Amino acid sequence: MRIDFQQAADILRAHDNILIITHRNPDGDAVGSTFAMYRILVSLGKKVRVLMGNIEQSAAFIEAPESYVDFEPEFVLAVDTADAQLFRAGTESEYASRVGLCIDHHSTNTLYAENTLLDETAAAACEAIYDLMPYLGVKLNKEIAECLYVGISTDTGCFRYANTTSRSLRTAAELYDTGIDSVDINRRIFETKSKPFLHFETMALNSVRLYCDGKCAVMMLTDDMYKRAGISESETHAIASLPRQIEGVLVGITVKERGNGAYRVSLRTNEPVDASEICGMFGGGGHKLAAGCDVNAKTIQGAVNLLLKPVTEILDNLK
Amino acid sequence: MRIDFQQAADILRAHDNILIITHRNPDGDAVGSTFAMYRILVSLGKKVRVLMGNIEQSAAFIEAPESYVDFEPEFVLAVDTADAQLFRAGTESEYASRVGLCIDHHSTNTLYAENTLLDETAAAACEAIYDLMPYLGVKLNKEIAECLYVGISTDTGCFRYANTTSRSLRTAAELYDTGIDSVDINRRIFETKSKPFLHFETMALNSVRLYCDGKCAVMMLTDDMYKRAGISESETHAIASLPRQIEGVLVGITVKERGNGAYRVSLRTNEPVDASEICGMFGGGGHKLAAGCDVNAKTIQGAVNLLLKPVTEILDNLK
Repeated sequence: MRIDFQQAADILRAHDNILIITHRNPDGDAVGSTFAMYRILVSLGKKVRVLMGNIEQSAAFIEAPESYVDFEPEFVLAVDTADAQLFRAGTESEYASRVGLCIDHHSTNTLYAENTLLDETAAAACEAIYDLMPYLGVKLNKEIAECLYVGISTDTGCFRYANTTSRSLRTAAELYDTGIDSVDINRRIFETKSKPFLHFETMALNSVRLYCDGKCAVMMLTDDMYKRAGISESETHAIASLPRQIEGVLVGITVKERGNGAYRVSLRTNEPVDASEICGMFGGGGHKLAAGCDVNAKTIQGAVNLLLKPVTEILDNLK
Repeated sequence: MRIDFQQAADILRAHDNILIITHRNPDGDAVGSTFAMYRILVSLGKKVRVLMGNIEQSAAFIEAPESYVDFEPEFVLAVDTADAQLFRAGTESEYASRVGLCIDHHSTNTLYAENTLLDETAAAACEAIYDLMPYLGVKLNKEIAECLYVGISTDTGCFRYANTTSRSLRTAAELYDTGIDSVDINRRIFETKSKPFLHFETMALNSVRLYCDGKCAVMMLTDDMYKRAGISESETHAIASLPRQIEGVLVGITVKERGNGAYRVSLRTNEPVDASEICGMFGGGGHKLAAGCDVNAKTIQGAVNLLLKPVTEILDNLK
């Protein structure tokens, strides 16, 4: 059942011995909203426990609160988790069927919890938690503000992504006024590259080739590069935006080897080139400036050549 | 003479046929504050002209306003320019001695203008201009907001740099509410790499070597790399932060060839390593987490080795 801020506050106030859980591979918003709710509920005099996969990993975002009291939970609170299947198997997931309250901002939330405070207009779960605090009668302090800032900054890409609203900025301004060290927090969130990623990025940059008088940039990602860097595809997602970032490039193509002659193509374009039109020719699709498709070829260069044919034609027609 | 917001507004209201100038190589705040003031003054019914070096370059940030009326200026307004020597030689500089009002935020402003509205607490000149608008009786609209957002986002690194304040965030929130496309603006400001920079970055990444069990990362920038990429040192400033970004690295060293056996060292550290202590050993200095020094050696690897000696010792003592 969807409930409002007042109802969520009433439910939390009525319970004690609360367990907080969040999704596996917790990102900044999961960690931030978990620790913020921990601090908020402890300040209300409640016994609270956190269950989080790889809690050490969370330290990359923010230090975990000092103590974890062990007790049999009476009430389960889930944060930033849209689906019960997103909990870590075997640990958090054993509580998935008895979540008393879920605080979330994903429009895809399946309403798996008994009660859900779902604020789709919030850029981060932490933004919703900030708005919940007055209903709980909890005043903002620096420790809570740090947690909330981690969540909001992570989910908005430090106010760069399209989900950023003036509400995100005004909330962040209130958090700033508690004296948080936002520079240090953002350095931890955004300015850390794993060694495998650095290795992979170097090889990816080396693979960039320009075509069509520099209007088209192609990056080729081979199986061998993933193996040599010791990194999985899911960890290198962001790199597909690189070719389009080059000055003067209207079409940025990233081709990934899939094995058995199959290649995955990510296309990013700048105005006026329509990425979905090009990918549509190969049975793919997407948006005007970002689209994808799959192609088959004998070599990765062969896959690139398939793409270059319509791209060259389109770029020639622009002149 | 330093003046306040009310006095600055009175001066602007009392004049017409206004020429706006800014510093050479205009960045986002120079372009944003120039075009914002242009729009503000035009909305007050004034004749206004802009003189800007490489006005095409400014389009990387924001489209120039529609029309430029040509007239002999009666009053010169300078924005975002701390020193008269920063104007473009031979063009803007001919007006340097007759600036009637300067609006700036640099604490280093030499007060070269007849009147200076200097707001050192503003992260960007555009932040000061936003606060000047009510004194001029000009209401915010989307066109002015776009200009101001370009300046604030550029100078705060999209709210990541240490100069960001809650005032910057609250101002940005007001700008958002006019309906500006912040995602597109930030893409233009931050996600564009020149081809020479990409080439240089690739070579720089290739040069990264890890030492001391991965706790020290070294990047070596040679004259040859600058030449091959066709880029100057001033355009590659940001790259020195790269070695420290690698996960687990406590000491990031960037060594730049200076010619004749001289090398410039930029040191970036993570807690608890003191960068200024290490650079101090070589006659340099700086801050705890960022410092610099000059060393002499026969080869760039020789320069690196000089640095590695004390760094290895300090990292060994941490164990």
